Amino acid sequence: MTDHTVIFMPSGKRGTFATGTPVLSAARSLGVDLDSVCGGRGICSKCQVQPGEGHFPKLGVTVSADALSCMNAVERRYDEKRGLAPGRRLGCQATVQGDLVVDVPAESQVHRQVVRKAATARPVTLDPATLAFTVVVEEPDMDAPSGDLERLRAALTRDHNLSDLTVPLEVLRGLQTTLRAGDWRVTVAVNLDTKTVAAINPGDRQAPLYGLAIDLGSTTVAAHLCDLSTGDVLASGGIMNPQIRFGEDLMSRVSYAMMNPGGDRDMTAAVRDALGDLARSLAEDAGIAASDVVEAVIVCNPVMHHLLLGVDPVELGQAPFALATSDAVRLAASDLGFGGLAAGAQAYILPCIAGHVGADAAAVALSEAPDTSDDMTLIVDVGTNAELLLGNRQRVLACSSPTGPAFEGAQISAGQRAAPGAIERVEIDPSTKAPRFRVIGCDLWSDDPAFAEATAGTGITGICGSGIIEAVAEMRLAGLVDANGLIGSAEQTGTERCVPEGRTQSYVLWQDDTRRICVTQGDIRAIQLAKSALYAGARLLMDEVGVDSVDRVTLAGAFGAHISPHHAMVLGMIPDAPLEAVGSAGNAAGHGARMALCDRKMRLRIEDLVRRIEKVETAVAPRFQEHFVAANAIPHAVDPFPHLGPLPEVNFNTQSGGRRRRRQQVKAQ
Amino acid sequence: MTDHTVIFMPSGKRGTFATGTPVLSAARSLGVDLDSVCGGRGICSKCQVQPGEGHFPKLGVTVSADALSCMNAVERRYDEKRGLAPGRRLGCQATVQGDLVVDVPAESQVHRQVVRKAATARPVTLDPATLAFTVVVEEPDMDAPSGDLERLRAALTRDHNLSDLTVPLEVLRGLQTTLRAGDWRVTVAVNLDTKTVAAINPGDRQAPLYGLAIDLGSTTVAAHLCDLSTGDVLASGGIMNPQIRFGEDLMSRVSYAMMNPGGDRDMTAAVRDALGDLARSLAEDAGIAASDVVEAVIVCNPVMHHLLLGVDPVELGQAPFALATSDAVRLAASDLGFGGLAAGAQAYILPCIAGHVGADAAAVALSEAPDTSDDMTLIVDVGTNAELLLGNRQRVLACSSPTGPAFEGAQISAGQRAAPGAIERVEIDPSTKAPRFRVIGCDLWSDDPAFAEATAGTGITGICGSGIIEAVAEMRLAGLVDANGLIGSAEQTGTERCVPEGRTQSYVLWQDDTRRICVTQGDIRAIQLAKSALYAGARLLMDEVGVDSVDRVTLAGAFGAHISPHHAMVLGMIPDAPLEAVGSAGNAAGHGARMALCDRKMRLRIEDLVRRIEKVETAVAPRFQEHFVAANAIPHAVDPFPHLGPLPEVNFNTQSGGRRRRRQQVKAQ
Repeated sequence: MTDHTVIFMPSGKRGTFATGTPVLSAARSLGVDLDSVCGGRGICSKCQVQPGEGHFPKLGVTVSADALSCMNAVERRYDEKRGLAPGRRLGCQATVQGDLVVDVPAESQVHRQVVRKAATARPVTLDPATLAFTVVVEEPDMDAPSGDLERLRAALTRDHNLSDLTVPLEVLRGLQTTLRAGDWRVTVAVNLDTKTVAAINPGDRQAPLYGLAIDLGSTTVAAHLCDLSTGDVLASGGIMNPQIRFGEDLMSRVSYAMMNPGGDRDMTAAVRDALGDLARSLAEDAGIAASDVVEAVIVCNPVMHHLLLGVDPVELGQAPFALATSDAVRLAASDLGFGGLAAGAQAYILPCIAGHVGADAAAVALSEAPDTSDDMTLIVDVGTNAELLLGNRQRVLACSSPTGPAFEGAQISAGQRAAPGAIERVEIDPSTKAPRFRVIGCDLWSDDPAFAEATAGTGITGICGSGIIEAVAEMRLAGLVDANGLIGSAEQTGTERCVPEGRTQSYVLWQDDTRRICVTQGDIRAIQLAKSALYAGARLLMDEVGVDSVDRVTLAGAFGAHISPHHAMVLGMIPDAPLEAVGSAGNAAGHGARMALCDRKMRLRIEDLVRRIEKVETAVAPRFQEHFVAANAIPHAVDPFPHLGPLPEVNFNTQSGGRRRRRQQVKAQ
Repeated sequence: MTDHTVIFMPSGKRGTFATGTPVLSAARSLGVDLDSVCGGRGICSKCQVQPGEGHFPKLGVTVSADALSCMNAVERRYDEKRGLAPGRRLGCQATVQGDLVVDVPAESQVHRQVVRKAATARPVTLDPATLAFTVVVEEPDMDAPSGDLERLRAALTRDHNLSDLTVPLEVLRGLQTTLRAGDWRVTVAVNLDTKTVAAINPGDRQAPLYGLAIDLGSTTVAAHLCDLSTGDVLASGGIMNPQIRFGEDLMSRVSYAMMNPGGDRDMTAAVRDALGDLARSLAEDAGIAASDVVEAVIVCNPVMHHLLLGVDPVELGQAPFALATSDAVRLAASDLGFGGLAAGAQAYILPCIAGHVGADAAAVALSEAPDTSDDMTLIVDVGTNAELLLGNRQRVLACSSPTGPAFEGAQISAGQRAAPGAIERVEIDPSTKAPRFRVIGCDLWSDDPAFAEATAGTGITGICGSGIIEAVAEMRLAGLVDANGLIGSAEQTGTERCVPEGRTQSYVLWQDDTRRICVTQGDIRAIQLAKSALYAGARLLMDEVGVDSVDRVTLAGAFGAHISPHHAMVLGMIPDAPLEAVGSAGNAAGHGARMALCDRKMRLRIEDLVRRIEKVETAVAPRFQEHFVAANAIPHAVDPFPHLGPLPEVNFNTQSGGRRRRRQQVKAQ
């Protein structure tokens, strides 16, 4: 018996297992979240997994084609009867035969990741690109033979003045059956934006047409399924971006593509599958047929954009960060691997603003419309990267800032993604220095007597992105952290919750008998780096415009919706502004996608605006580094924050080591 | 040990074999033409086979997914190192585990079928749809970011006034690498017919662009690879249409689609694979990269047309024979499953004339241009079905005629496809009644002393289509067959070569110790049915035009090239005409495809002509049956054949049974 390394994604849990171990058993022994209902009998298919293949340098394994056993009789029977999607295997039947990387798809996880991109109820204007036209088609005549398609075209021209339409091959395939099923009366869904027939249904069909507004992020993919006749959101949902198994953040995915021949293709296939899964799942939630979805509008950052299109993103990883294409992309949804939608469903991808400022930022610009306001507005879209827009009716500028993933809980000692059990809100009493907090999945604060019982199911598992921001800001407000970002000792702060870890201090948020969750000095450094980058980007845009302050700050992005403006300003993530002028736009990118889905004039509007937006490249701006260094302090070394009021004037610098102190002082100048 | 039925295609040879028998061993024991060089060690891959799956009602077997063994280590190693095409298996490694239908692809056959569609040297006019444009593209600029594609578009507009081009996703995928490889100078192949970018190559590329003219027949697929700058044919070749394993003729393939859910998809996949194989093989023959092939023009009959497009042909099998689409089809070659060509290669399929008169007939009309002549010309394209065109400058009519496959050697007792060893030419001495013949693969006649040695390799295996026509016509000319088609007895004809078989006579063409090849009474009946249908179609068109004779007869089609006009007229396949006015147009359909490939004006010309051609449907014409009955006699019961001269006035009717004689007489009135 040889032992093999088995790594489960997205959790990254790994272990060694003997040849012949069923994948489900391996998952259970590692505590991997893999569902199973039938007890491993190959019936329920809840334990479906997707094995990876090839070289995984980040994981340090190479997976051969025969690392999983051939399908056995049980699995083959399931496949024949019910059908396994390509690449999928039953975890209870497939056994380990070599080193393995196994992806656990979202639908096989019992506790699915909470994708915090909720549907917005914001209204949209209506002028959908796809409309339905009913026609009666002449029947075929042997004495004047012509194709069914040609007679359909003639009817569309005669009755609706529609001519020169593109009819995709997939639509043509179903044409003859549909014409006969409808007794020569059919309803044709025509995309007027691309002059393409999206679907043909028999009879005089009154049912609405549907569209998907998709926000494809590096970490999560969220979508709204909309009724195109009303703009209503019928279902919303999100899943993890399965590309995570190739690299946590954008640059590690670009590296994966550079280092693995064909690696970009693997990532393309993974995200396309995920889009298909999400579309099917939303259609099911809404109780409609996926084949009635005639359009998809997609927003995403440039790396996701290229990987979705199947373009190697390698150029986006190095100056001058050239996009393969920057204009809006109109193409068949099937070209994006979208199966299951209407045969001729069309996809529209918003234009990209620059190599680091993508179609998602364009969607934010469409949603927030800074170009229609007299106020000088800063719009910050905080995701794995941050994109910034600054402007008003006169001009709009854009840049991106390399914040890294700290704001999403990565690089944080107790950091985790937003999932049940994660600390998401923190308050620290300035006098007692004692914290209270809330976790995802429970509405009670931790000082509520019922809290322990209410969180018994999820446990308290770590700190998510919004939690760490609140924690650090509250620590600063409570005088536990000084302007340089140093955590004080128990002696300096007067609380035993400050505990030494090597030469630095940590603050204990929570502990029980087996574990404790702290904010460490390293965590604060990570947050300082991220927030400095964000602030420096904003300052750079303000320099370009020639202003020292802004009228309004809008926090966009799923994450932005969970940051309190006050905490963000205490940290110095954003420039000083009246607190009431700092607001959240919710998932502005998703809303922009929905606007473009429901109103085709919005596509022309954003294409025009993107052409007019002035792009600022932070990587080559000499002042960016300068702004970055000055923004390291909390909230800032030099810029005033008059709207914030005074913060505790503590300084823990004198107590720490000389080398560290001196470097800290230099940075803070 | 259980025994399983194993059937090899296209030969149809079958046998029963024990579980575990290697496919190569089974093939050898049945004498199936399956190559192997390495002796079954899984090295040479010459023995590749393609197993079928599902229900084969015509063959009476159902093949399950596990009818072949899983890949063993040897086969898997070959697949990893060299790569097996999807669906392909090594015949020496895969073993029989259940009932099997195994396709032997052309390249795995030692003696490949002779595809008699040779390249024509006929000249074409030049105005190719795809031209190359060299441009220098601006380099990306971080301060004014725009996509590489947008700067390429700007250069094409600026330098060549080309705008609004479609750039397929596959072309976009390679764009960034190509621009950098060419140091921002690239040559863009633009299809001006569809305004699509077919390919982008680095640098200032002077090499020519190439195109494929494809004649997709029910039995064979032939193609010419052309230099688009000269029209020269660089390579020609043909392969068997692999759909043959689903049904020998068109109607049995339509039946297959009707009776097997998804059967049309299987046939679509099979023919698309074959096109890809043929394209790669021609590119290799011509010594060019397949990726430099930027266009394909395809002609085919309506059933092939629909199956190629992936449209279920079921409507073509029943009145009113409605085509899904009749107009010319322009689409991406990749949509037809054509891998390996230029990333954006385009395909053009000529328009169909009617439900039974396809794009191949349109190509013949383009090639022979009856609409430009003052002569009333009859054009007969003899393939598995026959298509007929009749007309002149005033008007052109078209119909198809259900000849069935007898002219191709099917339904003939010793009939076979055109392959080495098949009798293709026959002469019978009118005085001695002794035959001499030639076989494919040898230039000598059988009465040559060197003949036996020269044909020792191939043997004498059967009679192909042109052979049976010559044999029957020569038998009529030698007085061995009477006007009613009856073969005389030895007594009546004075030759011992006429031998009784039941109540009818056969004529022995050749025999040795083990086998004899005869023309039977049944063979003559089959030829009579086929030629009556052909003649009746021609007469129907003549009725419509109001003529009793034609000025010229052109025999098109690969087969037409091998029929001697004199023999065709003796049989009464075609109306009487001066022998010097009966000619062969060679592979006119293939030539028409090449014309449309090399000159895009020809596409507009044929689209216009097809609209003007008057379609006549034989299936509903009352006079067709009347003409059919009268045409049963050899050459004809009533129509005069003044250009033929007198034929032997024999009548073997009085000697045969009363019932047969009376029915024969009624038919012959």
